[in-house]
Amino acid sequence: MIFLIGFPAAGKTSVGRALAAETGRTFVDLDTAIADAAGEPVPSLVARDEAEFRRREAAALAAQIARGEPSVIATGGGAATFGDNLERMRAAGLVVALGVDVAEAERRAQNPGEPLRPLLASATAARLAAKRAPIYRRAHAVVDTTGRAIDEVVRGVLAIERAWQRSPAARDGTFVALDDRSYGVVVEPDLPTAALREQAAEASRITIITDRNVGRYHLAAVLGALGGPRPVDTITLEPGEASKCFAVYQQLTEDLVRRGADRGSLIVALGGGVVGDLAGFVAATLFRGISVVQVPTTIVAMTDAAIGGKTAIDLPAGKNLVGAFHQPRLVACNLATLATLPGRERRAGFGELWKYALLDGPELWAAVDQTTGWASGPETTPPPDALATVVRRAIAYKAAVVGRDERERTGHRALLNLGHTVGHAIESASGMLHGEAVGLGLIAACRVSAALGHPDREPEVTDALARTGLPTDLDRWLTEDVLARISVDKKRVGAKITFVAIVDVGACVPHPLAVTDVQRILRRVPTP
Amino acid sequence: MIFLIGFPAAGKTSVGRALAAETGRTFVDLDTAIADAAGEPVPSLVARDEAEFRRREAAALAAQIARGEPSVIATGGGAATFGDNLERMRAAGLVVALGVDVAEAERRAQNPGEPLRPLLASATAARLAAKRAPIYRRAHAVVDTTGRAIDEVVRGVLAIERAWQRSPAARDGTFVALDDRSYGVVVEPDLPTAALREQAAEASRITIITDRNVGRYHLAAVLGALGGPRPVDTITLEPGEASKCFAVYQQLTEDLVRRGADRGSLIVALGGGVVGDLAGFVAATLFRGISVVQVPTTIVAMTDAAIGGKTAIDLPAGKNLVGAFHQPRLVACNLATLATLPGRERRAGFGELWKYALLDGPELWAAVDQTTGWASGPETTPPPDALATVVRRAIAYKAAVVGRDERERTGHRALLNLGHTVGHAIESASGMLHGEAVGLGLIAACRVSAALGHPDREPEVTDALARTGLPTDLDRWLTEDVLARISVDKKRVGAKITFVAIVDVGACVPHPLAVTDVQRILRRVPTP
Repeated sequence: MIFLIGFPAAGKTSVGRALAAETGRTFVDLDTAIADAAGEPVPSLVARDEAEFRRREAAALAAQIARGEPSVIATGGGAATFGDNLERMRAAGLVVALGVDVAEAERRAQNPGEPLRPLLASATAARLAAKRAPIYRRAHAVVDTTGRAIDEVVRGVLAIERAWQRSPAARDGTFVALDDRSYGVVVEPDLPTAALREQAAEASRITIITDRNVGRYHLAAVLGALGGPRPVDTITLEPGEASKCFAVYQQLTEDLVRRGADRGSLIVALGGGVVGDLAGFVAATLFRGISVVQVPTTIVAMTDAAIGGKTAIDLPAGKNLVGAFHQPRLVACNLATLATLPGRERRAGFGELWKYALLDGPELWAAVDQTTGWASGPETTPPPDALATVVRRAIAYKAAVVGRDERERTGHRALLNLGHTVGHAIESASGMLHGEAVGLGLIAACRVSAALGHPDREPEVTDALARTGLPTDLDRWLTEDVLARISVDKKRVGAKITFVAIVDVGACVPHPLAVTDVQRILRRVPTP
Repeated sequence: MIFLIGFPAAGKTSVGRALAAETGRTFVDLDTAIADAAGEPVPSLVARDEAEFRRREAAALAAQIARGEPSVIATGGGAATFGDNLERMRAAGLVVALGVDVAEAERRAQNPGEPLRPLLASATAARLAAKRAPIYRRAHAVVDTTGRAIDEVVRGVLAIERAWQRSPAARDGTFVALDDRSYGVVVEPDLPTAALREQAAEASRITIITDRNVGRYHLAAVLGALGGPRPVDTITLEPGEASKCFAVYQQLTEDLVRRGADRGSLIVALGGGVVGDLAGFVAATLFRGISVVQVPTTIVAMTDAAIGGKTAIDLPAGKNLVGAFHQPRLVACNLATLATLPGRERRAGFGELWKYALLDGPELWAAVDQTTGWASGPETTPPPDALATVVRRAIAYKAAVVGRDERERTGHRALLNLGHTVGHAIESASGMLHGEAVGLGLIAACRVSAALGHPDREPEVTDALARTGLPTDLDRWLTEDVLARISVDKKRVGAKITFVAIVDVGACVPHPLAVTDVQRILRRVPTP
């Protein structure tokens, strides 16, 4: 059973019909079924008594699920947002959200010949889209339909279905929708053993790459999960950013070849962003690409580094300047590993979480706010439910963006760079932790956004960072060295960078900006 | 104007119709036009007087071209193979050959319900396909339709059209069909200046990477072609395989960043396979991928290394063990550079050319045979027309295979590995030139093929290699060290490799084989 959810005019009915035809399933349009049963069209039902309509919608959905037929069910735009409809759909089958740009949705909804709708309608639609998008992202996967032909979307959904069928143990998670490279991301209170075993079963050899700190606590469990008939090697690195260099990269490739790695080998990256980026780059380039499973053990790695296939090593001139796009086969997050994080790293994770809250919207902002006690407090064991919600939502945001713009070409993926332009510069100049530097980068983003004419969010963001025990003294770090490092940011094309500006919580936009303008604003030099 | 050529049942009519509908062009089925004008169906026209039919066909084609309408013209399977029809089509517009597996073509041609045609018909179809395929490959591009939906093929053709429109100077060449990564390969008697300038115009900065030997002769001309308003840097490497190592790779990336490279930078790789592989890998990984243009200066680089996006560096354990797939934006071949090749390298090029002749068929074999005098003789200036034909056909073969199987997944690209399994092992153990080792690898392939029950081609291949002055003493090189190196071949998955067996000139097939079986056959140990 495949459920299609999403904003009106995202293409649920046309994609659903084509998908059903392609796979020999029955197609059900839930709104049509409700209207037929009621003998009254949906808009009139909603206008008369929306609560009653939602009851009928939930009942119609439950009836379809109970029928258990192999079908494709397209729901109305609101169905997934009410009650436990979404959870029921997820339990019964594959739930795919179709995403679409507001502008294109309006164009599709427009009858030809009619005058264009006023801007007010667009703004309302944009607000509704921003409000509902975080809910739609709780689907198994988000597939973008903007500018894509129906059959292309159908192929995308079928590719996710194959990944979903291949990985039953990952069905509780989120899938990154990237055609035949689609994969699952699971977040569990303990090690996602079953999901790991599914991947291990397909490998000819397995090598776990970890670092000394993480290995001490978590290697045994991963070895236990993967061990079996096939050999499992382990390579343990020195902890810290210094390992993300050419020398260690070279040593890893030579080591893997010496141990008999081949094209069917699997690398399991167990650790934070350093291990994930480095082991991922080894997997991207050894034999021109072998499989990698990411087992991230920090908040930053779970919500950012491990998802989306960006792999890299550092150069003396800057972080991540050499790397490749190489999607993992699975991302398996064990929340229990966060209990072994040093306090500073735990807090640093909130640099990324606040970033996602600014991107995703008020609900995630409030959810992150509920975990600040753990961030700055003495208790090491994370609050399981609250943190699981935060991590899953941040992951769902990232997964949706990556599925839409794998290689940072359309500008959507650039959004994830919020706080990173200045953050990376501070990080490379100071040796500060990534999340700490991103936190300062968020303050810098507020300052640049305000200079661009948006509302000033600096006090609010500074306060949030302070509550999670993160550095907020941006001015101290805005040295000429740091400002100069902005120009080796790898997103730069010519003299411009794509700066992500904060318009509101839940509304951030990429903004092409000259490096010199960013530097000028941050130096607080008035416009010439 | 787009012309579709190819084997019957490749999908010319259905793709042509969809393509015309998609782009608002007129669709013309040439066979239908001829039959309508003659008042007689095509099969009957052909049966009565094929020569007369071919005259009518040429005239109908000429009339369509003269009309000059924006149209999509599907030709009969034979049209491109007679007279100068193909050259006329290429001069008038974009010519795309649709390729299809013989088995699928027969399935498509089959009426549902009918019994399957006898094997004899299949064998005939396969022979005809093998005979015509080299002609179809003279189209601008080959797009495979096997197992692909019509609109997917349409999108592929439109992507090639965009590349073809963007690069008017490359229209005399071949295009590698890889959706939005499609690119042209041009072969000219001198430097393809116009094609290079087209690419340079899109770059923010340009860095030429070359080696000392090649740079001495050819750098000035390339600098002259690219020089202009934007800065052009040059990095000159030590010649030889030793440069394809981690240390030089690292140094290049750091050097490029120091010189101000950004995501809009272009690398121009001027040289043989070493420069192309190394500079290509730098382009693949710097900032996670920037543009590269290949300007190959050896036969091996022109026909093999520069095309298809394989980039790599070597490890002590073997060649090309670390690398990435990264397609160039253009491959610009200047045949005049071959005049500056040392005699040994010139001869080595024929290792690859004989490989392509074995893959492509008797016509290319005969064409290569006509250039053996240059290979082994004292004259350094290549015979321009004969060599241009050989190089272009070898490139067309490679382009078609790469377009079908970019990442060596379906087994088609594995064909290009003919002679390389043992060739790479000999090369890495001996320091022999790549083409020399591939030549010996071809003899090894003959030996393994004969052991698998195919006709013994070893005398014929040995004689051909000898005529081009290449080593033929395979037995001397089959040391235990060389045999052991076969097992680190990166094509290995588990204990099996995909060995390419020679059935006939123009008929080679991938054959999964245990490494130990290859070793046993080459040791001439009888089956246990």
